[in-house]
Amino acid sequence: MNRRKFLLGCAAGAALAPHALRAAARSRKPNEALNIGILGVGMRGQVHLRELLRRDDVAIAAICDIDPFMIGRALQAASQAGRARPTVFTGHPGAWREMYARADLDAVVIVTPWELHAPQAIEAMEARIAVGCEVVAGVTLQEHWDVLGAQQRTGTPYMLLENVCYRRDVMAVLNMARQGLFGELLHLEGGYQHDLRPVKFNAGIPGQAYGGGVEFGDKGWSEAIWRTPHAVVRNGDLYPSHGVGPCAMLANINRGNRFERLTSYASKPRGLHDYIGKLAPGHPNNRVAFSLGDIVQTQIACANGETILLSHDTSLPRPYSLGFRVQGTRGLWMDVNDSIYIEGKAREHDRWESAQPWLAQYDHPLWKRYAAHAEGSGHGGMDFFVLHAFVESLRRAEPPPIDIYDAVAWSAITPLSEASIAQSNRTVQFPDFTRGQWRERQAIFALDDRY
Amino acid sequence: MNRRKFLLGCAAGAALAPHALRAAARSRKPNEALNIGILGVGMRGQVHLRELLRRDDVAIAAICDIDPFMIGRALQAASQAGRARPTVFTGHPGAWREMYARADLDAVVIVTPWELHAPQAIEAMEARIAVGCEVVAGVTLQEHWDVLGAQQRTGTPYMLLENVCYRRDVMAVLNMARQGLFGELLHLEGGYQHDLRPVKFNAGIPGQAYGGGVEFGDKGWSEAIWRTPHAVVRNGDLYPSHGVGPCAMLANINRGNRFERLTSYASKPRGLHDYIGKLAPGHPNNRVAFSLGDIVQTQIACANGETILLSHDTSLPRPYSLGFRVQGTRGLWMDVNDSIYIEGKAREHDRWESAQPWLAQYDHPLWKRYAAHAEGSGHGGMDFFVLHAFVESLRRAEPPPIDIYDAVAWSAITPLSEASIAQSNRTVQFPDFTRGQWRERQAIFALDDRY
Repeated sequence: MNRRKFLLGCAAGAALAPHALRAAARSRKPNEALNIGILGVGMRGQVHLRELLRRDDVAIAAICDIDPFMIGRALQAASQAGRARPTVFTGHPGAWREMYARADLDAVVIVTPWELHAPQAIEAMEARIAVGCEVVAGVTLQEHWDVLGAQQRTGTPYMLLENVCYRRDVMAVLNMARQGLFGELLHLEGGYQHDLRPVKFNAGIPGQAYGGGVEFGDKGWSEAIWRTPHAVVRNGDLYPSHGVGPCAMLANINRGNRFERLTSYASKPRGLHDYIGKLAPGHPNNRVAFSLGDIVQTQIACANGETILLSHDTSLPRPYSLGFRVQGTRGLWMDVNDSIYIEGKAREHDRWESAQPWLAQYDHPLWKRYAAHAEGSGHGGMDFFVLHAFVESLRRAEPPPIDIYDAVAWSAITPLSEASIAQSNRTVQFPDFTRGQWRERQAIFALDDRY
Repeated sequence: MNRRKFLLGCAAGAALAPHALRAAARSRKPNEALNIGILGVGMRGQVHLRELLRRDDVAIAAICDIDPFMIGRALQAASQAGRARPTVFTGHPGAWREMYARADLDAVVIVTPWELHAPQAIEAMEARIAVGCEVVAGVTLQEHWDVLGAQQRTGTPYMLLENVCYRRDVMAVLNMARQGLFGELLHLEGGYQHDLRPVKFNAGIPGQAYGGGVEFGDKGWSEAIWRTPHAVVRNGDLYPSHGVGPCAMLANINRGNRFERLTSYASKPRGLHDYIGKLAPGHPNNRVAFSLGDIVQTQIACANGETILLSHDTSLPRPYSLGFRVQGTRGLWMDVNDSIYIEGKAREHDRWESAQPWLAQYDHPLWKRYAAHAEGSGHGGMDFFVLHAFVESLRRAEPPPIDIYDAVAWSAITPLSEASIAQSNRTVQFPDFTRGQWRERQAIFALDDRY
């Protein structure tokens, strides 16, 4: 039994017997590096790569990508970090299977186009390679069941790499909520409100990912290749987890609570068409009919009586904002105005005050401990924490803090919201992926300063 | 034919032939004061009274209320203003019918508990007394049809006194939207987020309306008498018009557009119970089971593809905010952070800037003209404008700028949201109160600086 099989044998038990798992994990050599492969070393994959190259408990054993430009950049990053050159798998769309078969990986970090996440995660788990999957677990609802089924069948660890759960203000607010400052939580809001037009379109020139053209699909480059076609054919909240992840952690979804149903509404689509028209009036892409409504909002009812509102708004000119709101019986926080109000503690009745002193006072133990490490990391440090949690939970053979149930519940919002919108905003029931286990499962996310 | 009958004869034609109406109105003597009765001179009614006492184109011919304390205050206000003592109708719940029959009113301003608005408006219109009705047109959906039916049958003018349509920033943003600064409008938000706990409960002592106790209903005083019982038995957006009114004007609802369907979600109710428990732990009202969810949100789809989100949040500690957001293809305004972003005009890409210079630059002509008059008026001047519009449209025998279709469409959100929540957040169809006329009707609200 090689180390990987031992590790994964332990992790396989995790879903059913976490305590037994934790006991077994103690016998591992603490200093042995994990062999990690990165599947997809595009713009986002390179961020994860650089993060992992900083860790001496990880060896980047292999990388895989279809784009030679991206492979070149990734190898350069490894070399600049003074780390061993990873084995490269490339050249054809199935190269990732070769990586799974030949690279002796403990874990794979999947950073590919959304439509590849589910099949690539499923085959990794079947090969007993632990999965750290970028957000979006699958495209169709069935794919979410399939990913869940593979995890349950194989017991291989699967973590969704939802970095916003680790945002400093979000974790401070989680800390405040756990200490009861907001009272009983009643309503949560979040979303993804980010002008992605220069991400969705470019001139198709390698190395120039953002803006400068109106090409997408085969003629685009980087995310414009694969992300934009989703906006042509789909209408729903295509990117729910940055908003819903922190809300789900606050509401203990899948751990004493669950999503019961949702309803989505979409505005008409205008932003992408207008953007093309402004930049290149005569371009053939002016004739593309986009399906994705510019603003999609989704209401969710939770079993314990909380409501959640999610927004998706990525095709319009607007300042970046995830639009968080955390509200309970004693007060609320909103991030758009960086303000908080806690009854009995606010200096003035009925007046917002700056959230900053509160966020500093309730800085999460994890941030207190690792703020220096996280400095310079991607997305304001969040990327350090999410990969730290992935690596640490694997090394300790403990359950991942954002697990398969979180992954499929958060990500399934997309196909469910599409179904709602397609049926004139019908309210749809949320499947219980835990099959009733949500009642007994306990919160494990960020309970201390370890990961 | 006395003056009232002449006036109302003209107004009756208004629904069908506004141009004919306007022509007829020119023959009125311009300096003749309107005889107005105020039905309900409670806290809100007194604000309207003081506003109307300032106008020399209006005579307060009569007041009506069941509460001698309120009558006393109203008479004092009239006396202090140096105006003639209005005839008082009081002493029993049907006193308002005597006022309608005997006071020779041109118009009545209805400022009574919500459940009285519909019957009192209907009988006024049947008596050919023009109606200015405080927000909430009726309680049940049928009542909304009944109010509409009475207006159509009698042709008597009916205006909903929705003051937030006249808020200075809201009007400036309407002005901006009409000038195309936001591009094509896509999404609107608004609501009523106001900690009303000290309004919903008091000690039942006349003259002490706000706070100081946990009584309501028969043992409360002022709004606590009638408003709080709605929260015991109803769950929905009980107060939609402050949020939806400005949104509806921006989206030209009933005038080229209409509400097509809505879905409402309600959080669990905790706020009112907690408030009683904190102030008076042993009080019998701790046993009251409130139905109204603390946070109710309603999504609305419009015929022209816009989406609207409304919030109702009146039972929790929170700073006052109507939560407006006006978003189009070129940018957006939000009031919670008092910020705006307009592509191509913003100083920095992707950065909010203060809305204040924009609001000043696009100050609505009506505010430019009447800001000095409005100074010192209720609710930051809005109350001047809404009554000015009511009086001016009547005097000119022109259609009211917030008319019966606006009133019933905005107010019907309440029973529709209750139905949605009661049926597990089912999406419900919006009735077309205009019976197809919305396609042809033209916007009339605040097109110039007259009213």
